[in-house]
Amino acid sequence: MNEAEDQIFMREALLEARKAAEKGEVPIGAVLVCEGIIIARAHNLVESTADATQHAEMLCIRRGAQVLGNWRLLNATLYCTLEPCPMCAGAMIHSRVKRLVWGAPDLRCGSHGSWINILDVSHPIHRLDVSKLVLAEEASVLMRTFFRGRRLQHARQAL
Amino acid sequence: MNEAEDQIFMREALLEARKAAEKGEVPIGAVLVCEGIIIARAHNLVESTADATQHAEMLCIRRGAQVLGNWRLLNATLYCTLEPCPMCAGAMIHSRVKRLVWGAPDLRCGSHGSWINILDVSHPIHRLDVSKLVLAEEASVLMRTFFRGRRLQHARQAL
Repeated sequence: MNEAEDQIFMREALLEARKAAEKGEVPIGAVLVCEGIIIARAHNLVESTADATQHAEMLCIRRGAQVLGNWRLLNATLYCTLEPCPMCAGAMIHSRVKRLVWGAPDLRCGSHGSWINILDVSHPIHRLDVSKLVLAEEASVLMRTFFRGRRLQHARQAL
Repeated sequence: MNEAEDQIFMREALLEARKAAEKGEVPIGAVLVCEGIIIARAHNLVESTADATQHAEMLCIRRGAQVLGNWRLLNATLYCTLEPCPMCAGAMIHSRVKRLVWGAPDLRCGSHGSWINILDVSHPIHRLDVSKLVLAEEASVLMRTFFRGRRLQHARQAL
């Protein structure tokens, strides 16, 4: 674990989150890192694909498995701009991601304590090392700006 | 909720589970039902696709969204032969599945009480109606037979 390195990769995940915002998607991004190299990167695509499972983290895990030709991501670290939801945390456990680094807390769906806590419960197969709140403010600002914009848009449409 | 109807659809999910076993996959199946019609069906494909997210339930949710052209599966019931894991339960919450019917408990990964409990925790966005242990013995027998076969195979390889 290296704080400066974590911030470098989280900035890459934040770049992905901004790409989501440009497409009108909730701004969440992720990158998957193996031995210091980004092997997969993704951003939230739920609305563009009309598929509720297309979270940045899920896409990153799936792309990483394709790159490695193996669903076991044993040496991988996943950087996510938001505290993962149960779906994404579950996928991380299944795919044996070694370490997770997340940014801003998610009060509605977070599964590392904000809504529920899956990641600190001992799992019979796998448990991840988790670092949290890395560049949290940057990720939070992105989310707040996005939702403020959406509320304004809805208010204008209602006029 | 109709017990006879639930058993009819769970038998379809069990057919899917058998298809998984024939491919050497852990035998888990699912069908998604809207207004009495199966709109999507799937079985576990984790090994064949080298993708840890390819659970029967996830595939069913994704295919259902494609069929409806909408990620909100508001009137859908999902029948799964096994108690869903957190990834699949999370996907059901995100996609607003109305009702879940599951078969056998999953002590390792079940997220409706066997490992942890996500489905009974009040969620700020959505909560599913859940019926459990429907044709549980049939689904359990499929799982036990599969894992016994795999243990025998491993034992033979070790000789």
